[in-house]
Amino acid sequence: MTLGVGVIGVGMIGQEHIRRLDGGPGGSQVVAVADADAERAATVAGLLPAAEALPTGEELIASDAVEAVVVTSWGPTHEPYVLACIAAGKPVFCEKPLATTQEACRRIVEAEVAAGRRLVQVGFNRRYDPAHRALKRAVDDGVIGAPLVVHCAHRNASVPGHYTRDMSIADTAIHEIDQVRWMFGQEITAAQVFTPRRSSRGGELQDPLLVLFELADGVLVDLEVSVNVHYGYEIRCEVSGETGTVELADTAPVRVRSGGAVAGLVPADWRERFALSYDIELREWVDTVVAARPPQGPSAWDGYVAQVVSDAALHSLHDGGRTAVDLPPRPELYAPGAPPAH
Amino acid sequence: MTLGVGVIGVGMIGQEHIRRLDGGPGGSQVVAVADADAERAATVAGLLPAAEALPTGEELIASDAVEAVVVTSWGPTHEPYVLACIAAGKPVFCEKPLATTQEACRRIVEAEVAAGRRLVQVGFNRRYDPAHRALKRAVDDGVIGAPLVVHCAHRNASVPGHYTRDMSIADTAIHEIDQVRWMFGQEITAAQVFTPRRSSRGGELQDPLLVLFELADGVLVDLEVSVNVHYGYEIRCEVSGETGTVELADTAPVRVRSGGAVAGLVPADWRERFALSYDIELREWVDTVVAARPPQGPSAWDGYVAQVVSDAALHSLHDGGRTAVDLPPRPELYAPGAPPAH
Amino acid sequence: MTLGVGVIGVGMIGQEHIRRLDGGPGGSQVVAVADADAERAATVAGLLPAAEALPTGEELIASDAVEAVVVTSWGPTHEPYVLACIAAGKPVFCEKPLATTQEACRRIVEAEVAAGRRLVQVGFNRRYDPAHRALKRAVDDGVIGAPLVVHCAHRNASVPGHYTRDMSIADTAIHEIDQVRWMFGQEITAAQVFTPRRSSRGGELQDPLLVLFELADGVLVDLEVSVNVHYGYEIRCEVSGETGTVELADTAPVRVRSGGAVAGLVPADWRERFALSYDIELREWVDTVVAARPPQGPSAWDGYVAQVVSDAALHSLHDGGRTAVDLPPRPELYAPGAPPAH
Amino acid sequence: MTLGVGVIGVGMIGQEHIRRLDGGPGGSQVVAVADADAERAATVAGLLPAAEALPTGEELIASDAVEAVVVTSWGPTHEPYVLACIAAGKPVFCEKPLATTQEACRRIVEAEVAAGRRLVQVGFNRRYDPAHRALKRAVDDGVIGAPLVVHCAHRNASVPGHYTRDMSIADTAIHEIDQVRWMFGQEITAAQVFTPRRSSRGGELQDPLLVLFELADGVLVDLEVSVNVHYGYEIRCEVSGETGTVELADTAPVRVRSGGAVAGLVPADWRERFALSYDIELREWVDTVVAARPPQGPSAWDGYVAQVVSDAALHSLHDGGRTAVDLPPRPELYAPGAPPAH
Repeated sequence: MTLGVGVIGVGMIGQEHIRRLDGGPGGSQVVAVADADAERAATVAGLLPAAEALPTGEELIASDAVEAVVVTSWGPTHEPYVLACIAAGKPVFCEKPLATTQEACRRIVEAEVAAGRRLVQVGFNRRYDPAHRALKRAVDDGVIGAPLVVHCAHRNASVPGHYTRDMSIADTAIHEIDQVRWMFGQEITAAQVFTPRRSSRGGELQDPLLVLFELADGVLVDLEVSVNVHYGYEIRCEVSGETGTVELADTAPVRVRSGGAVAGLVPADWRERFALSYDIELREWVDTVVAARPPQGPSAWDGYVAQVVSDAALHSLHDGGRTAVDLPPRPELYAPGAPPAH
Repeated sequence: MTLGVGVIGVGMIGQEHIRRLDGGPGGSQVVAVADADAERAATVAGLLPAAEALPTGEELIASDAVEAVVVTSWGPTHEPYVLACIAAGKPVFCEKPLATTQEACRRIVEAEVAAGRRLVQVGFNRRYDPAHRALKRAVDDGVIGAPLVVHCAHRNASVPGHYTRDMSIADTAIHEIDQVRWMFGQEITAAQVFTPRRSSRGGELQDPLLVLFELADGVLVDLEVSVNVHYGYEIRCEVSGETGTVELADTAPVRVRSGGAVAGLVPADWRERFALSYDIELREWVDTVVAARPPQGPSAWDGYVAQVVSDAALHSLHDGGRTAVDLPPRPELYAPGAPPAH
Repeated sequence: MTLGVGVIGVGMIGQEHIRRLDGGPGGSQVVAVADADAERAATVAGLLPAAEALPTGEELIASDAVEAVVVTSWGPTHEPYVLACIAAGKPVFCEKPLATTQEACRRIVEAEVAAGRRLVQVGFNRRYDPAHRALKRAVDDGVIGAPLVVHCAHRNASVPGHYTRDMSIADTAIHEIDQVRWMFGQEITAAQVFTPRRSSRGGELQDPLLVLFELADGVLVDLEVSVNVHYGYEIRCEVSGETGTVELADTAPVRVRSGGAVAGLVPADWRERFALSYDIELREWVDTVVAARPPQGPSAWDGYVAQVVSDAALHSLHDGGRTAVDLPPRPELYAPGAPPAH
Repeated sequence: MTLGVGVIGVGMIGQEHIRRLDGGPGGSQVVAVADADAERAATVAGLLPAAEALPTGEELIASDAVEAVVVTSWGPTHEPYVLACIAAGKPVFCEKPLATTQEACRRIVEAEVAAGRRLVQVGFNRRYDPAHRALKRAVDDGVIGAPLVVHCAHRNASVPGHYTRDMSIADTAIHEIDQVRWMFGQEITAAQVFTPRRSSRGGELQDPLLVLFELADGVLVDLEVSVNVHYGYEIRCEVSGETGTVELADTAPVRVRSGGAVAGLVPADWRERFALSYDIELREWVDTVVAARPPQGPSAWDGYVAQVVSDAALHSLHDGGRTAVDLPPRPELYAPGAPPAH
């Protein structure tokens, strides 16, 4: 009953996922890989016990051995691969972003709606992080009363040279965009971006940013995005409610007393910080696919909405001022508790 | 060599200060009190070994036994008392706010400038809190590189029934207004107030508020003001810089493990949280007065500027949008390192 | 390439392990179960996709479908089952304790030595807990200099009615016995047990205990064993070295501010606290079995030594005073870096 | 109403106390100093506004200007000075230890009992530390149920060259001896000292020590004494009770994120850690002296008992094994709630 998985795009995040999926939880096995760099695909396949390197993503999707697809290729290629999976009726796990424009995301949503069943899951891994889940649970359980204001920080130690100003929103802040929608069950209705004093460590980059999101019920979310913070990788979040607050705790497993200080290590990067969330995300995805249930994780609709909000924030970043978020009605297919696919 | 101190206004904060000043550090002694409520003045005087209750603040200021004055009366009365002290050439410690309008503050500044020497200190006690001093020291020492964004929260468990929306700025946020000016040595150039979802615990009050301050060098400060947060009194501040961050630590002296949790107590109110800062503030003030040095603490100018920034934030709260702060040039008297009074 | 696993003893811990092993990491599958309670075995088998309930552990071990065995039955039955596995040449994972007397453990060691290859792994899960691994790494990396004194606490919220005084050592403290041997690479040379004031919550039980272990290099380990501590389940450990200390950090993923306190949850029991360690323990065990490598985890020798030290501590508890630990030479089979089995 | 204080011994701790007493809380003034080093006495007196340097402690005690005496001279001189104060009927604050032998302490107790009123207070400053007071309050309030086991650590970054093995008990652990008597209202009935692996940083010194104290009600206290721990000065204490535990929290006022870690500073030495406790200790002492009440702080009896327990621990350190503590009956003068002096 092993699930045959094909992986399109075997760069860093692709290899991370392969490590988890091959001989992994629930009995999945990577049976095929494809990559724009054929040599890399061959190398990765060669290291796996049962994987074939296929020339193109399309051929991978069409392969009979491939029962489910993971798309971890370059962003602009997500749309055609995901559409091909929908056309082939195969479950697909697509790393975030679902696609690089809201129009492309919209086409995916429409294709899935037309197909009449949910096949797409988007890789917003925050929803699988035990600490974020504990945060949501405390809010849902009423531990702090109704939430009113949320304070977030998303900090990277550094970013590669090709990282642009817009990526602070579209690649980085997009995690919080999905997180707050999921955590509070509310849509984001407006976004506004402020540009603090610029870090000298980021070259020409406008870094950090301060983003303000408004939720449908009036909750305000402020978010510091800092991508050259040097000290490590850290995600902070405090939800302030009517009777209390809840925040993510430090993640260090041990505390060291030395050299005049008592200290805990901060993760070096997202791989270290979120390793467990990827484990859980992929295990739960494999479980639902094997059980022939519709994916429980972030849907194509979630991927689309995140892109719309991201675009609103980018508009504010470019032109200043507050930008309202305008969403079409949510298709029935994505209603919570929608009946599972046949 | 005991310093004879007169206290005008012997309500809660007045009595707090009297407790510290009578037979207190540096050998100060409360020799006279006055209050709009003559009976209360008499009661308080009766509890002190050497204090006389005088009918009016003016008579107290004029009394030969009074060498220095503490003004802790109702805000609107601050201006005449402080002006009278300046006219009498007597050092005066005035609780914040210096006065309730920027025009009144301005008149005090002008009177002091005309008098040619600094006699006024304003009760912005944050500058004396050991934790805030440690925060400033870390920033000044370059521990986190250049500061870029600052995250603050000012939370009261509850407020009395007469507390109004504007007081969230003019009475509460004014502490952070002075704090950031002091901590970063920069003027605030603009303020903008956002109104999150309203707490049901605050009745008609718009609570919480989210305030955004811009500093002259581009640093952005976000501040949550919540005055009905129920769980306790808490001041939070994290300064995010180019290479790291520094934040106020928890203040609980012990950690208790019981009932499924490990917990530290949060202070109940500002008296508990800032007791030590008041001790230090008054001791340092008495020391400079006794030594005939000009006050080192927050000046009349600081009191005036805080009021101007507070007004800008109130303007934003009332009319929406960002409000620029417009300051006149700082008189020479208030230049850092200005020569001490004769 | 799925590994067929048989599980003997399907009580609480047995079911915990089955959940991890069936369709679990590395592709293991539970193919057979046995239990003294035949009905329970049938029930558990019925819930699994591919497991058969067999009448006895012996038949399970003999079954061709069973490639590796997990022993989670009642302690006194461990010895015969493990010996039967060795006789059958099948890898066996035996929950701690390896056996209930040191003589029984010794017979297992001798059987394994006679068989000439390592087949037995003992379920000391501490070695797989990420926090304990981080603690060991800090010590090994010299972060605190040479270790000198170690402070441990092992606290259970409560224990069942049949829990006896001796179980505080033989069932509870035995985890720390293995942990310190593993963490410091040193044998325990003596044990001494002290009996503090007795908790009124433990009935006739002598609870808590304070145990002192001496390591071969002089390091002293003090251990509080409290099994009715009510507030939750908690494992504490601080290693104090020549230039610093390292300790386990709090495990709560979030911090809640409410009701006058800032608090993190403490785990309710060992299942919650050590869930991840069991995942890793069993995944690593399956991996080595599938790869036909000798087990890397705690060996039969480790199980035997833990029992000898436990007996020394029990002797001290019964008769008072310090009890030296007397160990025979370690067989070559258990030397670190011993050549893998053919 | 200024209290005239004379200080005998103006080394480091003497100067610390002078700084607090001169023009300090309650209106005390240092009017006389004496020191074995006459030049040092003259220098210190010269820095004070109103102090005279006297040739001997005896003359200081006899001086009419001196209403109360602080003894901070070399330990072996404590006895004669304190006895002279009792003879002169003057209140005396004597730094710990009260005297260097239990016999000398006993003679002081007997002199005070013969004088019929309490004049002596011993400088066990732990009782004035807000964190230790909060710890005691949690225990007294029943927050953790009845206390059962206590874990302490007393760590110095380093010690001077003349520091001897016995001083780890007589000068260092003596603080915890007084602390646990005060905190639990119980006598220590036995002591046992264990010698862990020796730190290479301490030269010939036996460092650290592990000390075990038994209280009258069966509570056990383990104490790590480490005097070369390099990372800073730290006092740790956790009280484990029937339903929970309470421990001293970290003392760092701010937390810094930098260089891969989130860290708080550890105090460098006892002056930094306990500055506030000395403030409170001396203010409370001056207050009781001014009010002509008997001292509320550690009494001569407390100083004597600490010495007896310290001797028992030293006996165990020298000869091994557990040493029982043998105390004579407590004189009526030291009964809690004993009537104040005339």
